[in-house]
Order: sequence, then structure tokens, then C-alpha cells
Amino acid sequence: ESEEVGDSKNTKLWELMGTYLCSDRHSIQRSIANHVELTLAASRFDFDASKCYRATAHSIRDRLIEAWNDTNAYFDRHDPKRVAYMSLEYLMGRAMQNALLNLDLEANYRDALGDMGFDLEKLYEEEPDAALGNGGLGRLAACFLDSLAALNMPAWGYGLRYTFGIFKQRIKGGDQVEVPDYWLTFGNPWEIERVDIVYPVRFYGEVITYTDEATGHERKRWRGGEVVMAVAYDNPVPGFDTFNTINLRLWKAAPSSEFDLSSFNAGDYMRAVEARQRAETISHVLYPADNHSSGKELRLKQQYLFVSATLQDVIRRFLKVPGRKWDDLPRKLAVQLNDTHPALAVADLMRILVDDHALPWDHAWSITRRVFSYTNHTLLPEALEKWPVDLLASLLPRHLEIIFLINWHWLQEVQHRHPGDTELLSRMSIVEEGMHKQVRMAHLAIVGSHAVNGVAAIHTHLLRTNVFPHFDAFFPGKFQNKTNGVTPRRWINQCNPELATLITRWLAKAGSSAAKPSKRGSSSKASAAMVPAAGAGTAWLKDLSRIEALREFADDETLHEEWRSVKADNKARLAAYIADEVGIRVDEEAIFDIQIKRIHEYKRQLLNCLWCIHRYTELKAMPKDAILDEIPRVVIFAGKAAPGYHLAKRIIKLIHCVGDVVNNDPAIQDTLKVVFLPNYNVSNAEVIIPGADLSQQISCAGMEASGTGNMKQAMNGALIMGTLDGANVEIGEECGWSNLFLFGARASEVPALREDLRFRTKTAVGSAAGAAASGPAGAAAASKEPSEEGDLVGADALSADEMADGFAAFDAVVARIRAGEFGEAGQFADVLNVLEPQNDYYLLRQDWPSYCIAQARVQTVYADRHQWTRMSILTSTGCGKFSSDRTIAEYCKDMWGITPLRRPDPKAGRQGI
Amino acid sequence: ESEEVGDSKNTKLWELMGTYLCSDRHSIQRSIANHVELTLAASRFDFDASKCYRATAHSIRDRLIEAWNDTNAYFDRHDPKRVAYMSLEYLMGRAMQNALLNLDLEANYRDALGDMGFDLEKLYEEEPDAALGNGGLGRLAACFLDSLAALNMPAWGYGLRYTFGIFKQRIKGGDQVEVPDYWLTFGNPWEIERVDIVYPVRFYGEVITYTDEATGHERKRWRGGEVVMAVAYDNPVPGFDTFNTINLRLWKAAPSSEFDLSSFNAGDYMRAVEARQRAETISHVLYPADNHSSGKELRLKQQYLFVSATLQDVIRRFLKVPGRKWDDLPRKLAVQLNDTHPALAVADLMRILVDDHALPWDHAWSITRRVFSYTNHTLLPEALEKWPVDLLASLLPRHLEIIFLINWHWLQEVQHRHPGDTELLSRMSIVEEGMHKQVRMAHLAIVGSHAVNGVAAIHTHLLRTNVFPHFDAFFPGKFQNKTNGVTPRRWINQCNPELATLITRWLAKAGSSAAKPSKRGSSSKASAAMVPAAGAGTAWLKDLSRIEALREFADDETLHEEWRSVKADNKARLAAYIADEVGIRVDEEAIFDIQIKRIHEYKRQLLNCLWCIHRYTELKAMPKDAILDEIPRVVIFAGKAAPGYHLAKRIIKLIHCVGDVVNNDPAIQDTLKVVFLPNYNVSNAEVIIPGADLSQQISCAGMEASGTGNMKQAMNGALIMGTLDGANVEIGEECGWSNLFLFGARASEVPALREDLRFRTKTAVGSAAGAAASGPAGAAAASKEPSEEGDLVGADALSADEMADGFAAFDAVVARIRAGEFGEAGQFADVLNVLEPQNDYYLLRQDWPSYCIAQARVQTVYADRHQWTRMSILTSTGCGKFSSDRTIAEYCKDMWGITPLRRPDPKAGRQGI
Repeated sequence: ESEEVGDSKNTKLWELMGTYLCSDRHSIQRSIANHVELTLAASRFDFDASKCYRATAHSIRDRLIEAWNDTNAYFDRHDPKRVAYMSLEYLMGRAMQNALLNLDLEANYRDALGDMGFDLEKLYEEEPDAALGNGGLGRLAACFLDSLAALNMPAWGYGLRYTFGIFKQRIKGGDQVEVPDYWLTFGNPWEIERVDIVYPVRFYGEVITYTDEATGHERKRWRGGEVVMAVAYDNPVPGFDTFNTINLRLWKAAPSSEFDLSSFNAGDYMRAVEARQRAETISHVLYPADNHSSGKELRLKQQYLFVSATLQDVIRRFLKVPGRKWDDLPRKLAVQLNDTHPALAVADLMRILVDDHALPWDHAWSITRRVFSYTNHTLLPEALEKWPVDLLASLLPRHLEIIFLINWHWLQEVQHRHPGDTELLSRMSIVEEGMHKQVRMAHLAIVGSHAVNGVAAIHTHLLRTNVFPHFDAFFPGKFQNKTNGVTPRRWINQCNPELATLITRWLAKAGSSAAKPSKRGSSSKASAAMVPAAGAGTAWLKDLSRIEALREFADDETLHEEWRSVKADNKARLAAYIADEVGIRVDEEAIFDIQIKRIHEYKRQLLNCLWCIHRYTELKAMPKDAILDEIPRVVIFAGKAAPGYHLAKRIIKLIHCVGDVVNNDPAIQDTLKVVFLPNYNVSNAEVIIPGADLSQQISCAGMEASGTGNMKQAMNGALIMGTLDGANVEIGEECGWSNLFLFGARASEVPALREDLRFRTKTAVGSAAGAAASGPAGAAAASKEPSEEGDLVGADALSADEMADGFAAFDAVVARIRAGEFGEAGQFADVLNVLEPQNDYYLLRQDWPSYCIAQARVQTVYADRHQWTRMSILTSTGCGKFSSDRTIAEYCKDMWGITPLRRPDPKAGRQGI
Repeated sequence: ESEEVGDSKNTKLWELMGTYLCSDRHSIQRSIANHVELTLAASRFDFDASKCYRATAHSIRDRLIEAWNDTNAYFDRHDPKRVAYMSLEYLMGRAMQNALLNLDLEANYRDALGDMGFDLEKLYEEEPDAALGNGGLGRLAACFLDSLAALNMPAWGYGLRYTFGIFKQRIKGGDQVEVPDYWLTFGNPWEIERVDIVYPVRFYGEVITYTDEATGHERKRWRGGEVVMAVAYDNPVPGFDTFNTINLRLWKAAPSSEFDLSSFNAGDYMRAVEARQRAETISHVLYPADNHSSGKELRLKQQYLFVSATLQDVIRRFLKVPGRKWDDLPRKLAVQLNDTHPALAVADLMRILVDDHALPWDHAWSITRRVFSYTNHTLLPEALEKWPVDLLASLLPRHLEIIFLINWHWLQEVQHRHPGDTELLSRMSIVEEGMHKQVRMAHLAIVGSHAVNGVAAIHTHLLRTNVFPHFDAFFPGKFQNKTNGVTPRRWINQCNPELATLITRWLAKAGSSAAKPSKRGSSSKASAAMVPAAGAGTAWLKDLSRIEALREFADDETLHEEWRSVKADNKARLAAYIADEVGIRVDEEAIFDIQIKRIHEYKRQLLNCLWCIHRYTELKAMPKDAILDEIPRVVIFAGKAAPGYHLAKRIIKLIHCVGDVVNNDPAIQDTLKVVFLPNYNVSNAEVIIPGADLSQQISCAGMEASGTGNMKQAMNGALIMGTLDGANVEIGEECGWSNLFLFGARASEVPALREDLRFRTKTAVGSAAGAAASGPAGAAAASKEPSEEGDLVGADALSADEMADGFAAFDAVVARIRAGEFGEAGQFADVLNVLEPQNDYYLLRQDWPSYCIAQARVQTVYADRHQWTRMSILTSTGCGKFSSDRTIAEYCKDMWGITPLRRPDPKAGRQGI
């Protein structure tokens, strides 16, 4: 690919590139000044904060590029097996502070800028979020990249560079308004446009059959149609406490600059130009639905552009090394499919191997399966992607043929194992039969991968038992669990520096025990050789299991004091943010009760909102004096609803309407506030999470795959109010069940409870009989650890009376909405409708009695400062498992077969880049 | 606009920016190496010629930005009157060599790169042309910017940054194929994206009437509709031999990032995003028709985006100075409308003054007229823009109202002067009545400007007498002539360095006479104070009239030798280019006979092509030995046809078909070659023009406004074969009539000749009577100078016999085509049709007899080496007038009222930028 220019070695040029940029005060200042003038072309007459931010960003980028270039060169030289992490979403958030922390240059830049009269922290605020994702899936991908870099893994991320990321949520009269997020308005200094890395991607066209002259075999070729270019944009991802900086390569669709003479049509020039320009629309906009498949042609184009460009890129790199054999491919490359969004890659790799490189089908298939692995992220049926066969036939005709062929071979296998079971064949087929045939992308991904994982123990269990039981039986060992994690660099060190300092200090007190890797430390190997760049005592940021050592201080009053002081500061910061954003003044002594995540029925913000009404009613019923004894509560919601998800948007409206009443009623004397913070994103999560006392993780059991917000908040000392769902279960295991506020039905009980609802009237379900049958997990459940996956927690049922009282309270709350106490009831008709017992798919009413009991317990426990602080410390220090380093170490070992490759200390001298 | 950040003065930052980049060998090498790594993120593994070009370009750009920033700051500090040159087209060509020559850094970069093993000249070839224009109009604008910079004028260019410039022309089987020119594929290092300079531009919407509370007056406001953003891209334009670097600001359409909450429509998010993104289509593509109005809504959007952003920008700058009064506007700002494309600016400035700033109408109108001046570029009716009233009513409702109001006031004036002349009113109205009312943009531009100019003496004369006679009578003195010019920096110094060196050397020989400004030197004042940056003896590049001093050597045999040697080298380069591009080997001793320009009937490439057939026939008729005595001729065509201009494309086809026959006929022994060079553009013009012996400027008289290709070729020593049209007339005056090969009807004769054709049969027109009536300018005309504009040249008629013989030869040529000698005749049906005498609007047959005589004379004169060389020297050295410096000096003095403002020598120390 590289053409030799100039004299044969360009010796002089490489000599000039043989030194690194200095990062002393003067060099940084000089570098910023150069960027002010030469990159931004600014002068003193138009210099402002945004330009100061951008010049500084470019200065940091220079240093990132050095590390990134050298890491890439080091990888190339050593040619390790690599992983390509394919994800259609990355919620990276802001880059500047992360880069400075990971390059260990924050102090230098603060000093250099300070000396020039600028405040680094203010510059951080100038950066728009890179918000190329909807929610947890995209943020997980971002955490994974951070861990891959920190762990020195030879890994690259791949994705799409959307012109418009997830919409900005504004609130107008309580309604969500979606504002397109044109995040590139001021350019993006954190990316490197790679105009030289461009691949053609074909759509439509036809499949021709021809005879291979060399072999006499009949072969197929896809040709014609439209060609769109995918241009690479590289985003350096610096690792913490290492010299490695890896890459996130995002593709942008661009007009093809090659010209197909055969499509020449005299006089149609303007139309030809417009058609070509339309290519760009492919990467314009992120689909804004979370956990929901769209089925739109443009979305399929996004997926294929992503898949095709990525595979061309990894195969080009593979073939660059002389003497490659195709059998080497799985030894040199792992490709991870983050959800089924990139699942077309299975068919595309087959096409490349069979059509372009003339491999026999079976050989190609064996290679393909060894290359891919697939992560399932959801149990929700509406999120499982299916593509109509008609659409594929038109857009990707050759891929459809290949999918049919894969399916034919696959069903042969199934039939061989289970002869005559046509019902099973139809259930396991990649192609769903029916009037409108569809391709089941999850089936394609499972069949085409050597490993499939769920993202939390319970989720993997449900995948294996409920969703894909026949596949699990067919492929023993293919289904694995990889419980999610989050990066402690961003989610403790960056967003909660006071807590990080406290941990570092107390770990030092804990003495030698903290210096040793903990018993659980699965990621300890990767961090054994510490790079001196990291500050002293921060080894725990690379081996989070070390923080367990603080558990011995769980009753230390000095730690308690400091712990509370950190939390108080973070709450003050959050209170200020709330006042700024929505003009509500909240009591900093109140319980900060937080539910932050996409708005979705299954996540049950509605349950929380109903409880606010319930609590408000309780408070209203109290005598004035008694109210003052109540511990105040600030219930904080944040999250976006998909623009087309009507009911979710009605829930946002209801929260605002409830807030309007509650927040403005002097009778309750500020003992309850209901706050909705608009435009939840990574940056404001970094403000909200450290300020959380209580974290609402209240999905209907069996529906949340994992959650990572629960981990982030737990790490930062929030107690979890939760159902036995997703990662809550493992948080309970790690932190101690007694430190969580558990409630609600277990996943295993949910199907029967739903069955019940379908055949009973409202009154019948409200009866004690219904409650007895359901056996919800009450507060009492908390102390009992689960014995096995199938029976995760023991739970005592509430008494029939407790259930009946709860149902009555629930009905009373609903009646208040219906009575118009929170605004004209007609606007909530759809909300009220799903609150009808027979429509209550997500079991709000069923879980309500135990939820209320758990909520009451929060009030009681919080009154006991020592107890609450102790629980908070135990929760936080129990989170060692939930570092994404641990997750990534498992992926690397169990699924990808890759090992660390650490770039040596550059101080030893620069090696040819 | 600029927000104070950091400490109040940012002293440290400005200190750091207080020094200039060094341009010694090491600094340049260091700078290139930095850009290789940090701007391109390249490593030795992917380094290639394109990256070497781009890194070097960025290094030069850094130096351009310094000069550009300081020039802007200097202008701001001195606040002179400025001109905004508004043009929808700029054919800038390549930037690198131009920048190095004008910054006087070519030697430094050649040395620094050479020392690293790179060849600067090879890097030049890596640059794609910036081709944001169709033809002469756009290239003129580019030459003007060069002159404005060189003359230290406080001037900025404004235009649109098209994603796709003029299409690339490829030839497939003799047919033109239009390939979209995605010229930004590898980015554009010569522009500076100004993400902070963004203006909203409104379309559609409504006009509301309201009462101004301050005054009680009724006022109007335009609101609603769609808002698109215009983002500035700045292109530094360095001046030759000065420290000034001025700016060309191009606007790109971008999605609005502001959000109109009132347009919020629940669930329509994806559509809202797409609608927003569609904004970008406005600046996607340059309309590819030259001298032809398109009438498309998108074109009108382009025009208004351009106008609105530009006026917002100049008014913002105007108002930045405290204490401004609106009456100061015409004292601080001149706006030039290059053709009517920006004529909406007249209405838009009125809207800004009246609606936004509450000026009374008459006051606003007085200001507006003093601000604008307008250049007319064409006499062709199909090129005169008219916009349907319906379209304006929808897209720009307030502008339409204002245009109606302007027209109402204007017609009041006309009526006052010519009471009762309704015929005159309707002819002079800005609004053309009829079933589909239209706005005549030329009328709007004339009425709204204080000065209107044509671009050559004869063109201005025809404008005043034929096209706008009533306007000329109404506004005495408003119509002026500004004969076009070209920049000798690009069109001699850069493209023909050998000739430039020769001129410099011989001017030194000419001694003190050359050092003095010549008698004609209108631009000599501007160059009186030479900046030492320019090489010694190159003052003529800033005052081209100095080259007249070489006329005294017109018979010097030493000069003749050198002159021919330069031409021979340039012809060899062109011959190599021809061989490379189209694989035709041409005789370097042949007459290189060149016609390069847009393909258009009125430019009469067809006439030239018919002559090729005629010449071929002549040669075929000769005995073998006689052929060898003939001077060979290479007829070279280059030019694009508008994609929708069917007949022009057929002419291209015919040229290729004739070439196929002629070039492959061994019988004529290479004495004639017919070459079509594809994709004529600025870069290949720089190769073709220096190699020209003969320049075909053969438009039907009265139809070519000026031409500038004639000037470029004449400067480079080509003799002109031409009609008395456009600037040919003035070239004759300057260079001496006897040095041109003149032929054809005069403009004044054309109408009668056309009338004749309409009423005569083919035979009748072919008669001697028809010829006698026409009185064409024969070769004999050449020695007589014109006495006045109305009688530009005297001309002897050909004899009736000569005419008759000529017509017969013409008919014989046409008959050959019809007979299928150059391919199946059916494909040329449309060409043959316009060759029918009654359809021969452009008078090919009429001008043919004298054309053939002139062509024969070329053969004769070329045989006399001394004579030809003498004519070539006299032509070239007679071109002093045709420097765009002279043109621009006239615009500055007569139309804009601006004077030079020269940035002082930066070596004296940098002043606060």
C-alpha cells in the first residue's frame, strides 16, 4: 500500500521524526500558541474560550498521535493476534481529561495553561460529548476500549462516524423535544481523518455465475449496483498507566470517486452528482432507539457499510504480511460482534473467502466460525433483529445467497442430529418462514461464531435456558458469560477525584495487603509490570479488586467521616448542577435517589414515579411537625426516550407533572423533590453518579441484561434499590446482600405472573391469592445468598395482608392520576392503560408492595448514619469485580485468545515509526 | 464577537505568537516532518508521494496563515475602504507553486525538500485543481484576486465552496463523459475551516407586518421557513512581491445547529435530521453550464446563501467599529457583483437596512446604490438571468416584495422622464410581464449599482448601444469599460519560467529604459515601492507595460534565437503531454494551432474543425512530394461542453471522428494532426499555452465579451487568428494589427447577415451577391487601425469570386461529413442541421472564405521564420495592457474608490495579531 517516494529510505525524514515532543511548560505553551495561530488561524481579535479549548486539544492530540503511531508500529512489528471489536455504537463522552489522565499530563497542562492565565477545568467544559450511542451498549463499548488500551491488548475498535449522534433531549412543557446533535459543528480535534484509508462498499447490483478458468469450477461474483466509499476516521484511545495508545476506527460514508463509465447517461450529470452525494446519508444519523430494531433499509445500509469496510481493513492488514495462508486468519484475528448489528460480517467474510479468494465452502466456513464471536445484549423480543428476505435480496443479493447456503448446511446438521423434527428445524432455522420471510440475525451470529456470550450471569442463564435452549444443547460450551464492567479510570478517578484520592490514601494505610493482588484479581497479571507513568499508589485503578482491602475499615469512624465528606461534596456539586439546569433548589442533606438510564417500560421509571406520588400522599397526610422529622428525598430522573416511543415520552411528561405538583407544594416542606435532568449523557453522568446516595435499578426481573449504571453508582458509594435482575445479582453477591435494597418478583416467577394477569380481572389479581402465588422477594431476602443460577436468591413472600395493602395503595396512586391531580388525565390515557392489571406486562403492580417496603427501609436505614455509611463503603469496595478490565481479561482469554503486547518505555529511544 | 478568556490580556499567549516561523532549510524540514506525523498521522509504513505533498502543503500553509493573519489585522487597524468581490465562480487552479512564488519561498522549499530526497516539481503534480468555475468568468475572478493581493488592495473575495467543482471531462469513444469532481477527496490544505464564522440563512417562511413601538411606523419582518447555516472557509491569497496576503472566503452550506422548537413534531425525528442534513446540498455542486442560465430552484438557493452570508459578514465587520453611521457604509465598503449571480444582494441589503435597521427607504436606497457595482459578462440572451416571480415568492418572499418596490420607484422615475411611453416602461421594468412573470436580474443589478461595466471595449460598446441603450441614456456615465486582464505571475512567470527569465534578462539589456515605468503603465504607481522579496529585475511582473521595452529588439537575431528556443522547449513539453494524454505523437516542428475554451456554438470550434477537414482534403489532393514541402500543422482542441448542451457534445464527437481519420491516414504523412485534449483546466492550460504558436479566437463577432485565453496565449508568444470580437480588438490595437490573422464579419454587420440568412435559400446565400453584401474583414484589413468604437476596423471585402469559391469549399466539406467520411452521418444530424445556411446563426459559412484565406496566410508566414518570430515578439511584448493589475487598478479607481494599504516589512517586528 505504501509507495516509496523520495530517496529510497527517506532517511532524513525519519531522523527528523526520531524525537518526541517535549511536555515541559514552555513546550506545551509553544505548542498551544502554534495551534491558536496555525491550526485555528485565530488572532487576538477573535480568541475565545472555545478556541483556547481547541488549541489545547490539538496540542494534546499531537502527543496522542505520537503514542498511537508508535503503538501501531509496535503491533505491526510483532504481529500478534488482534481483536477487532465491532460495535455500531460508542458513547465515548469527552476526551480531553481522559487523554490527559491517561497520558499522565494533566498536571503539566494545568500548570502550562495556568501560567498563561487559563483554567484547565473550564476548558474541559467546552468539549461537546462524542455521543455515538444510545445507552448501555455504546457506553460498554467505550469502557472496553479503555480497558483494552490499559491492558495493552492488540485491539482496535470499529464503528460508524455518525454526523448526528444521539439527539439532544430538551424539555418543553414537560415534553421531550429531540434536537439533532450536530456534534461536529466545531470540528473534532480527537479524530484523525484518514483520507488515504478508503474502501469501496457495494450495494444492490447482481450476482453472476462464471467458470473459473484455472479450475474449471463454477464461481459467483457480485457486481454492478452502487458503490459508496467508507473513509476512516481514527480516534486514538490512550491506555492508563501504559505507553500503549490503541485505535477506534470509525467509518464515514462518502461519495465514490471512482467512476463507472457504463453508468454514463448523457445529460444526467446533475442527477448523477446528487446520487453520488446521497452516499453520505448512510452515516448521517444514529438510529435513536435503544433495545429496539428498526427494520429500515438505511439501517441495513449502515450495517453493511460498517461490516464491509471493517472486513476489508482487517483482511488488508492480514494479507500485508508476506506468506500468509488463510488458515492463519483465526490465529491472527478475532472479530467480536457487539450485538447482531454487525452480524452480516459472517456472510461477508464467507463471500470474501469463497468468491474473492476461491476457498472451498467448508474451508471458508471453518475459518469464519473461528474468527467470530458474538455478544448478545438483550432478551427483549422487539430488540432481536430480523431482516426481510426481500430487502436483502435487493440490497445484498450475494449475501442473501450465502445466508441461504449457510442455513442449508446448518439445517442439514440439525436434521442429522434430530431427524424428522421439523418443528425444531423451523425454530432453529436462520430464515424465519412465513408470508414475509425474514433472516434472524441472532441465529446467523450464533451459528457463525465459535463463542456467544451474555453480559451478566442471570442474563446468560436465561439466554441458555429460555431464548436459545436448542442452540445451547447443540453447541455445548459455546454460550458463556462475561459479566459487564466499567472503567474505574473514568467512573471513579476522573468523575470522582476526591473518592479516588481517598481510596489511594486508605489503601496505603491498609499497608502491604493492598499492594498484593487480591484473591479475586483476575486482571492482576496484566498490571503486574507497572509503568512508572502512573501516580504512586494508583495500582488499584488497574486492578480494582485491590479496593477490597478497604473492607477491613468498614467500621472505621475516620474513614466514615471522610467518606461522608466526599459524598457531601459530590452532592453539593450535583445540587448546583440541578439548580443550573432546571432551577430546582434541593436540600443537600436529602437522600439523593437516582434513576438514570434510557426511558423504557421495562426499566420501570413509572414505578419510581408512582412511588413519588405515593410518598407525596404520605407526606401530605402527616402532621406538620411530623414532616420535619422525615428525611427529605430528592428523586432524580434522567434519560432519553426513543423519539418514536410514545409511551416512554408520556412517562417523561408524567414525571414532570408530578414534579410540578410536588416541588411546588409548601405543605410538604421540601421533604420530597422530583427532578428530571434533561439530556442525560456521559458528561452529566459524571456529575450525577458521584452524588448518588441511592441507585434505582428496578427493571422487571429477567429483562435487563446487565446494566452498568448500577456498577458505576455502586463504585461511587450509592446503595442499590433493585430487583434480582442483570448485574444487580452479582453486585449483591460481591458486596453482600444485606447492603442492597432488594424487592420484586424473580425472573423465574415472571412468566407465571404474566399468565395470571392475562386470565384474571383487576380485582382477582389484587387478591391475596395472587400475591401468594407470586412470592416476591421482600426486604427479608437480602441476607440470603443465592445457591445456583437457577435459584439466584431466596425470597420470603410478603404476607397476604401486606400484598393487599400494597395493591390498594397502588390503585390509590393510579386513581390520583386518573382524577387529574397531576394535570388533565386524558394526556396520560396511554400510561393509565398500561397500568390496568391485564396490560401490566412489566408487573408494576405486582412488585409494588415489596418496592414500597424497600423504599420505607431506605428512609429508616438512612437515618442511621453509621449504618448507611458502612453499607456504602461495603458496596463501593465490593465492586472490584465490576472493572471492565476484569471483563476484558475474560474476553481476551476465553473468546479471543489474545495476549498483551506492551510498547516499551519510549524514553529508551524512539524506534522507527 | 470575541469573548475575553483567561487573564484579561492573554499576554503570554501573544508573546508566544510574537515571532514568525523561520524558513531556513532545517526549519522547513522540521515543519514538514511534524506535519507528516502530527497532521497526517503518517508513519514510514504508509508514507507516499501524496502525503509528502500534503505535509509540504501544510508547512507552506502555516506561513501563509501568518501573513494572512497579519494582513487582516493590519487592515482592521487601519480600517480602509474595502471591496468585497462577489463571484459564484473561482477557477483558482493549483495553489502550491503560486504560494511559494508569491511568498518568495520556492528556492527554500526546493532546497529543503531536495536535501531530504524529494523533488518539489513532482509534488506540484500531486495537487488537484481547485476548479470551482466554468470558464473565463471564474478564471478572471482568480486573476483579479492575485492582482488585488499584489497591488495591496484591501479586498476580499467571496464565493461558494462547492463539494463538486466543474466535472472532469473524460472521453469515451469520442464522446464527452462527465465525471463528478470530488476534489476534496484528500482534504484541502489551502483552506482554513472557520467553524466559528457561521451565519444563518433563511429560506421560504413568511413576511409579517407589525408596528414599530418606538416610532409607530408599520414595518415588515421575514420569519419562519427553513434556516441553513453558511460556514466560512478561508483561502489565503498571497500577493506577489508584497507582504500582503488577502482572503478568499467561500461559504459551505451546513445544517443549522439552532433549533426551532416551534417546528417540533413528535416522532418525526429521523425526518427532521434528514431535512436538516439536506441543507448541505445547497453548496454541493457548481452548475456546469457556461454562458447559460439554469432557472433551477437549487441555483437560486445557492445564490441567496452566497448573498446572505456575504452581506452578513461585511456588515458585521462594518459595525464592529464603534460609532459607525450607516452613511459611512459606502465610504467603507464597495461590493462588486461579478455577473448577475449575486444580484439578489441589492434586495438583501435593502432588506437589512430597512427591515433590520429601520432605515427609511430612500436613505437605504441611496446607500445601496453607492455600495454596489456590477460587471456584465455576456451579450448572449440565454445567459441573461431571469427568475420566475412564483419561485421568488415562495423562496424569498420578502425579497420579492422589495424588488417590486424597487421597481415601482424605478418605473416612477422612468415615467417622469418619459411620460406615457408604456413600451419603454415595459422594456426597462425589472419585472418582465407576461403569463409567467420574471425578474430580470440584469435590470435589478443595473438599477441597484452606481457603476456597470463591460469587459472589453467592443463589449461595453455593444452593451451601451444594443443591449441596454435606454439604461445608458438614463444613467450617463454609469456604463464603463474595464477590459479584462490576466495575471502575469501565473500566466508567464509560473507557467513559462523560461520566457520569464528571457524577459528579465532582455529587460536588463534594455537598460535604464526598462527600469522606468512605460508611458502606458497605469499600474506603475502601485508597484513604485518594490518589496525586496522579489527577485531582481522582475518589476515587469508587477508592471507588465514595462515589457514594451523589448519591442526595440523585435529584429534582434539573438533575441530571435532565444525566443524560438524557449518556444521549442515549451512545444516539446506540450508534445510530451499530448503523447501522455491521448497517445498521439506530434511533430514538434509543426505549427501548434490551439483552440482552448468552453465548447460553444458561438465560439465556433466547429469552424476550426471544418477547416481541418478542408486542409486534410487539400493535403490528400497533393502529390506525395509536394506534401513534404508543406509545413505540418497540429490542431489542438480542448474544452468542456455543458452536460446538457447536446450540440456542443456532438461537436466534440465530430472533432474526434475527424482526428481518427486524419491522424491515421499515412497518405498525408503527418502534415496534419487533430488532437482533442480532454479535461481542459487551469493546470493543463499552464502546459498548453506556452506551447502555442497560433491561437484560435474565432467567435462570431459581437458574441464573445472579451476572452482571456487570447491574452494568455498572446503573452506567451502565440499569434492570434481571430475575428474582431472581444479583446481581440484591443490586442490588435496594442500589438499592431499586422501581427494578427484577422477574418470574418464585424459585429455591426452580423445582424444584417443573419436577417439575410433567414430569408434566403442556401443557394442564394452562397452567391456572390450575398458575399458582396456582407463585407467581411479580410486579411488585408489587418494593417488599418480602428478610428473609433463604432468602426473598429476597416475591412476590405473579399471579391465575389473569392466568396463564391469559399462557399463552394465549405459546402464540399459539409458534404463529406454528410457522406459519412468521418463516421456514420446520422450521429451528426444536429451538427449538419446547424450548418444549413438558414440555421447558421453563428455565420460559419459566411466567415469561412476569409477564414480560409487567413489560415493559408498562417502557413505562408510561418515558413518565414524571421517574420513569424518578429510577429510573436511584437505580440507578446504588446500585451502590457492585458495584465489584470491594470484592470484591477481601473476598478479600484473608477468603481470602488479603494487605495492600496501595504503591510509593512515584518522583519521590522511583528505587530499584535
